Amino acid sequence: MTQSNKDIDALIEMMAKLPGLGPRSARRAVLHMIKKRSLLMMPLADTLQTVAATARECLNCGNIGTTDICDICESEKRATGEICVVEDVADLWAMERGQVFKGRYHVLGGTLSALDAIGPDELRIPKLLDRVTSEGVTEVILALNATIDGQTTAHYIADQLEARQIAVTSLAQGVPIGGELDYLDDGTISAALKARKAI
Amino acid sequence: MTQSNKDIDALIEMMAKLPGLGPRSARRAVLHMIKKRSLLMMPLADTLQTVAATARECLNCGNIGTTDICDICESEKRATGEICVVEDVADLWAMERGQVFKGRYHVLGGTLSALDAIGPDELRIPKLLDRVTSEGVTEVILALNATIDGQTTAHYIADQLEARQIAVTSLAQGVPIGGELDYLDDGTISAALKARKAI
Repeated sequence: MTQSNKDIDALIEMMAKLPGLGPRSARRAVLHMIKKRSLLMMPLADTLQTVAATARECLNCGNIGTTDICDICESEKRATGEICVVEDVADLWAMERGQVFKGRYHVLGGTLSALDAIGPDELRIPKLLDRVTSEGVTEVILALNATIDGQTTAHYIADQLEARQIAVTSLAQGVPIGGELDYLDDGTISAALKARKAI
Repeated sequence: MTQSNKDIDALIEMMAKLPGLGPRSARRAVLHMIKKRSLLMMPLADTLQTVAATARECLNCGNIGTTDICDICESEKRATGEICVVEDVADLWAMERGQVFKGRYHVLGGTLSALDAIGPDELRIPKLLDRVTSEGVTEVILALNATIDGQTTAHYIADQLEARQIAVTSLAQGVPIGGELDYLDDGTISAALKARKAI
């Protein structure tokens, strides 16, 4: 890049490394920020500093927060005896946006994968088994992605929990709300048909 | 948004205000940054702080830099007696990427517009006329966008400079390099035909 200033060049180069931004959109974003310096750029720089300095994984569940134990694990209201197991923090955020689940989470940090040599100890599975005992959990909800690795991981966890007297459930599979049958894949349609229910 | 942490929420909200990013891509960008904390997030936060604290418009040409007079205006090598007039800093950057123009710039900060009540004094036109005298300018290149407002502004500036003994030129209009005739608009084709040259 041959802009006029080395700090601005460096900023554009770093912004271009963010997912969803390339060199062109990074330039646009930086110009936009400089034009809205006090309204946008300064608060953004401050918040970015704060988060960069304090962001960490929750020691209990693996969620990202700014404290050793995240707000969800801290909250007594969330001690419902339910743990929702997700692959990634992004999935936890997606579940929270649903605003229905009132229990706690457990972020695995990936899925079991024979190809990538990821076994149970590379994920947070031992910690999950600990929590099931120590937190008096009554139900583990497996909210893993409907991929082969996701489902393998779900089966593995279900096996591990079998001996204990707790419910192990998974998210329902079916037609998404607002989804049109014509555009759905065959697998989803057949899963939705098998799981049909009386109305 | 109902993520787990207020600083991270605030960061996502601010990132979502950048052009080209929405709530979803802002979330992805923030998660990506947190995962690459020391490699990406910390340097980005530092650079953003620096630029937010120091970015300013060059008092001479209107380019954005971190000093009162930008690097291009400071450089003796760029004192070629040519001034390239552009609407916006983004256009200046685009010209610089071309790596052909060796003179200085003048950023108008917009175009004349009767509808938006933008007259010559709202732009940096008086400053341009000053510079033409004080910097011993021999050629003014009008690199304004090929829009109606852009061309109106170009004509106005050309009129103002008419009395002085300097060349006033504009960028050539024609077929872009790599452009296919079939996909070009009629206006460009007719402009390119009118400006045809012997080979």
